[in-house]
Amino acid sequence: MRATTIHAPFDMRVEDVPDPVIQRPTDVVLRVLRACICGSDLWAYRGESARQPGQRIGHEFLGVVEEAGSEVSGFAPGDLVVAPFVWSDGTCDYCHEGLQTSCPQGGFWGSVGSDGGQGEAVRVPFADGTLVKLPADAASDDRLLTALLALSDVLGTGHHAALGAGVRPGSTVAVVGDGAVGLCGVLAAKRLGAERIIALGRHTARTDIARTFGATDVVAERGEAAEAAVRELTGGQGAHAVIEAVGTEQSMRTAVAITRDGGAIGYVGVPHGSGTGLDLSVMFDRNIALRGGVAPVRAYIPELLPDVLNGTVDPSPVFDLTVGLDGVPAGYKSMDERTALKVLVKP
Amino acid sequence: MRATTIHAPFDMRVEDVPDPVIQRPTDVVLRVLRACICGSDLWAYRGESARQPGQRIGHEFLGVVEEAGSEVSGFAPGDLVVAPFVWSDGTCDYCHEGLQTSCPQGGFWGSVGSDGGQGEAVRVPFADGTLVKLPADAASDDRLLTALLALSDVLGTGHHAALGAGVRPGSTVAVVGDGAVGLCGVLAAKRLGAERIIALGRHTARTDIARTFGATDVVAERGEAAEAAVRELTGGQGAHAVIEAVGTEQSMRTAVAITRDGGAIGYVGVPHGSGTGLDLSVMFDRNIALRGGVAPVRAYIPELLPDVLNGTVDPSPVFDLTVGLDGVPAGYKSMDERTALKVLVKP
Repeated sequence: MRATTIHAPFDMRVEDVPDPVIQRPTDVVLRVLRACICGSDLWAYRGESARQPGQRIGHEFLGVVEEAGSEVSGFAPGDLVVAPFVWSDGTCDYCHEGLQTSCPQGGFWGSVGSDGGQGEAVRVPFADGTLVKLPADAASDDRLLTALLALSDVLGTGHHAALGAGVRPGSTVAVVGDGAVGLCGVLAAKRLGAERIIALGRHTARTDIARTFGATDVVAERGEAAEAAVRELTGGQGAHAVIEAVGTEQSMRTAVAITRDGGAIGYVGVPHGSGTGLDLSVMFDRNIALRGGVAPVRAYIPELLPDVLNGTVDPSPVFDLTVGLDGVPAGYKSMDERTALKVLVKP
Repeated sequence: MRATTIHAPFDMRVEDVPDPVIQRPTDVVLRVLRACICGSDLWAYRGESARQPGQRIGHEFLGVVEEAGSEVSGFAPGDLVVAPFVWSDGTCDYCHEGLQTSCPQGGFWGSVGSDGGQGEAVRVPFADGTLVKLPADAASDDRLLTALLALSDVLGTGHHAALGAGVRPGSTVAVVGDGAVGLCGVLAAKRLGAERIIALGRHTARTDIARTFGATDVVAERGEAAEAAVRELTGGQGAHAVIEAVGTEQSMRTAVAITRDGGAIGYVGVPHGSGTGLDLSVMFDRNIALRGGVAPVRAYIPELLPDVLNGTVDPSPVFDLTVGLDGVPAGYKSMDERTALKVLVKP
């Protein structure tokens, strides 16, 4: 089959690789219908996260089961399924608690020896613990299929951030980060009943989506000016729930500064940089909590799926560029240069 | 009156100072029956927190109302009352939410221009918002009076840490810090239904109190050996709820290391040191939350008071040395040298 590989920073290729086959009786082989490029893939693209030459990439995909191992009970050839961005065994303590990202047998698509989502097919370990079935008729609805793809990562990650930030009905929420995850954080906050949602961002194409998703206010300033603007919008107090969807020291500093005393930061931006951006003395004096991390999206798919299916939650606008498999390297370039928000891949 | 003053690091004095008087109609003047020395007072004592020469000190006390301002409705001369370690107006948003430590009109005993608890009397601003009445007959019960004094700080702070750590019935809890707050964290965790409480500490006088308070296990090792010991006690996973009651980088590092994936650190140790001790990448990968800060003990006193009155919660063993007012400087020395755990002051 053909799949995307990364050979060095900025050197993405689409190459012939071995077809995936069932290796264990709990595996499924899945033909990819939709995949996409994640903001976090750019860390590898830019060389900021190390990869071995030729390693696969892509951790967001949905598709059709082609073959199921002898011990797979939940899926059969022909089933339409979505995969979360890590696989998990579905049987350990952590999986039972809904923290599948901590499953000792879990793993990340594209890690050495595994397939990635940006290819024609994927061998899925622990299929029963990992995959979630989708209605078969969704396969013929292009818009819906795109929306469902967001369940593999960005929608569940935005939901995780909103939960971490403690969003409740009536909350005032601020969202740091105007990428696909930040925008899905807006969507998730709206879904959880937030009354006021302040989106920080200065790219109108993105903040327009934020408004569509439920943002009531947009702050285009950066740094201290942004902090002042959020304080002004919140009677000087800041937002009770702050979603941090970037992962840099600066974004975390901003998040701390705009959180109301007693509030919480829900952070889902993969931490980068040598420092944390956290001023613990400030957080201590103001009782600001920090909750979040890698999102156990597998736990959230069953809860979010009905709302995506009935259209009350539609994350599909975050995909603003569509490519075929051969267009993946150009897709990385577009996202790296911020000319594309999130690239949809139709292999 | 006579009161404790701090003139320079290690230079504590007991001096004649002006008698407190009603300055505002919302004030009360209170005669101190019991006060104590806090581990956080030692930061000033050691010169690690700056003080102006002659500044008062002491933020934990209870006593009898001597005089009440004309607008004070809740208290009259003769009332036995306990003060939390900050005063607060009782009327703002934060006070209504139970986050009195963020009250814009609030303040800290012993700050410039205010009385401290380690003296004969205190002018209490915003008495109605600050003080909590105690049963009059408690004044004649020496042991009970000492236990009630813990409501001014350490018991409520331990409770705040336990809440921040997410202690629930059945929880496995680990407590970093064997000072009075850490021990009260054990007591609070037990009260909230923790099934297993692992106390980290190597001073048997302290860990013996921890066992009395409900600790089921004691880990005497430090650093990586302590982390390994906690992991071994918890099936390799760590504790779901970790109380951090020290405030150093090392203690926070230990707290992160022994927290179970998906768990939380409730931190109440006043942060000291240039770094945070937080490895955000580890916390991200393992979904470890951080919640806590300066404890709004005013909010907790009404909840904790009945259990102290009926004896089901008895923090009095944390006080292991009693002095009169003139003995306060020696009391600081004893706590600094760790020959005393917590010093009770009977002015």
